[in-house]
Amino acid sequence: MIVPAETVAARLARVRGAMRPAGVDTLVVTHLPNIQYLTGFTGSAGAVIVLPRTCLLVVDFRYVTAGNSLTASLGGLVTLATFERSYDEALVELLRREGSLRVGIEAAYLPVARFNTISAGLAARAALPVESVDAAALVPTERLVERARAIKDRVEVDILREAGRRLGLIARRVDSFVSEGRTERAVAADIEAAMREAGFSRPAFETIVASGPNSALPHARPTDRVLQAGDPTVLDFGGVYDGYCVDLTRTVQLGAVSESLRRLYVAVAEAQEAAIAAVRPGVASSAIDGAARAVLARYGLADAFGHGTGHGLGLEVHEDPRIARPSPRGSDPIVEPGMVFTIEPGAYVPGVGGVRIEDDVLVTDTGCEVLTR
Amino acid sequence: MIVPAETVAARLARVRGAMRPAGVDTLVVTHLPNIQYLTGFTGSAGAVIVLPRTCLLVVDFRYVTAGNSLTASLGGLVTLATFERSYDEALVELLRREGSLRVGIEAAYLPVARFNTISAGLAARAALPVESVDAAALVPTERLVERARAIKDRVEVDILREAGRRLGLIARRVDSFVSEGRTERAVAADIEAAMREAGFSRPAFETIVASGPNSALPHARPTDRVLQAGDPTVLDFGGVYDGYCVDLTRTVQLGAVSESLRRLYVAVAEAQEAAIAAVRPGVASSAIDGAARAVLARYGLADAFGHGTGHGLGLEVHEDPRIARPSPRGSDPIVEPGMVFTIEPGAYVPGVGGVRIEDDVLVTDTGCEVLTR
Repeated sequence: MIVPAETVAARLARVRGAMRPAGVDTLVVTHLPNIQYLTGFTGSAGAVIVLPRTCLLVVDFRYVTAGNSLTASLGGLVTLATFERSYDEALVELLRREGSLRVGIEAAYLPVARFNTISAGLAARAALPVESVDAAALVPTERLVERARAIKDRVEVDILREAGRRLGLIARRVDSFVSEGRTERAVAADIEAAMREAGFSRPAFETIVASGPNSALPHARPTDRVLQAGDPTVLDFGGVYDGYCVDLTRTVQLGAVSESLRRLYVAVAEAQEAAIAAVRPGVASSAIDGAARAVLARYGLADAFGHGTGHGLGLEVHEDPRIARPSPRGSDPIVEPGMVFTIEPGAYVPGVGGVRIEDDVLVTDTGCEVLTR
Repeated sequence: MIVPAETVAARLARVRGAMRPAGVDTLVVTHLPNIQYLTGFTGSAGAVIVLPRTCLLVVDFRYVTAGNSLTASLGGLVTLATFERSYDEALVELLRREGSLRVGIEAAYLPVARFNTISAGLAARAALPVESVDAAALVPTERLVERARAIKDRVEVDILREAGRRLGLIARRVDSFVSEGRTERAVAADIEAAMREAGFSRPAFETIVASGPNSALPHARPTDRVLQAGDPTVLDFGGVYDGYCVDLTRTVQLGAVSESLRRLYVAVAEAQEAAIAAVRPGVASSAIDGAARAVLARYGLADAFGHGTGHGLGLEVHEDPRIARPSPRGSDPIVEPGMVFTIEPGAYVPGVGGVRIEDDVLVTDTGCEVLTR
């Protein structure tokens, strides 16, 4: 995807706004989806240095041509830098040149080894007697770019809406993939082929086709199990469209439906509806999760739902916000317009089977829009 | 894949042998392919604690069932542990319980945030006046498991040989995928479908189909460009078979071949042959790389080959050893029997096109076996 210059400017402004309260004058971005968000760069390696007034995109020799045309299209917002030896040496050089003093790093991603190499490089340079400058200090920061990414801008909403529409069309056809005598793997292959045909560049995660007893395992992988009459089958699949991930689950039934399975299906469908109805700006994510849980509890299925109700979608298939009970640290994000996340309650009963139903929603000013129907 | 208990025992013994020289009594393994190597566990999250006499596999609630059956099959070599709150709290608890003092962590992978959380947890516990024990210290280590992984054992060789054979069969059919009027994306889809049919669980990386001028870009991605007569097309694809990655490139020509392209092809094919002939135990990787470079230089193409000659293959598609010039730090691995890596010289000439030819080799006692032919 090409990100328009004004969108890049707005994204950089939001991240700069988060840098000051975090106590840093510079932010070194090494997490690839964050680099893509800030510059549109999609290479498999790179770094971004966000400075108060400029932004540097650091790439290795493989990406110099692509990087030059990218920065040219951004009209001076982002400057390209490359290097001879290594990313970490380049970062040290550039941070020195820019006179950065408090350098934020992405603590959730930067490995200890790179942190130590960059720290040592900055300290070694500062010890040279040539200039009497302070050494720059690396400061662990968390989620500065991720928090900006949680609220999708217009460019992202347009892509996610189109991606959701295309995935929703495939969901209507899943009955045609599932038939007696086929293996889970064959069904998964059909779904992935359909996603490619529909314009997705790749699956967003390993497609799940979980039939019969496997349906009771929320994280099953496709096996050579042959589908049989009476099987419930959970189909959980997603694709990357123009860089953005969407994610959807349907549970289909082969042949006659047992009463206990039908009840499971009704309960989960009602739980999903309740959770979707609870989505609006200002509510806590735990309230959306709670709406699904309350319905399942009413059906006596409180213990059959062992995962969270949803997760954010965007450049990554799992991002902010989590739609779940408050985290062990007490985090419970408040829903805001522009957030996009899944709503995917499930119920898993060993001996009976499992049901999960998942759609993707965009939070609007008054409620939400379901993207995958 | 199920790893036999005696193989797990041998792998753990090799890693324990590397721990003492690294100055650690305990190793916390958080890199997923390393976890899979040591235990066979294939979940999307987990940790392993290697202790002098035991080994703990730490998993969250999703993997308790799978983890229990896995550790049961390993007959006491590995013990399962799970937790209520978080991986990092669990690691702190377990390290305390085991009395670890010098705890190696994988510095190339453990993020700064987790390092700080675990360090703080260990320090806080040690400060309790209940016992007068020293606080455990976290020690950055590098490549302890990776160095063991570079030498494939019999279980791995069997899988890689079969994977290479299957990928080689697809390589024979690439001419049938490439025809005038088709797009690069359509050809990529065919290759990926063929890999799935052949038993690969997923592509090992994003398939490259680079036609015409795109062939001169070593890291092109498939586009909607329509293949035309006279095009060279670089097809670089790989799959994951039973957990292991293989990787292969062919360059095919549509219609009449220009003299300059034919010359490029001849040079690269000869360079690949020379590099493969140079593979045997005891040689430096740079000598294999040099063998390819010498041939290309003879054709006046020294500057047309901007990447390394190869990379190791295994649970990851890029692993030890690098087959290239010595690294900036001077690293130049010596080739040993049991190593598996690619040999993939290329020549890229803007205005003419690009050619790359890649096969995978297994180092034997006397030379090498080509796995993908």
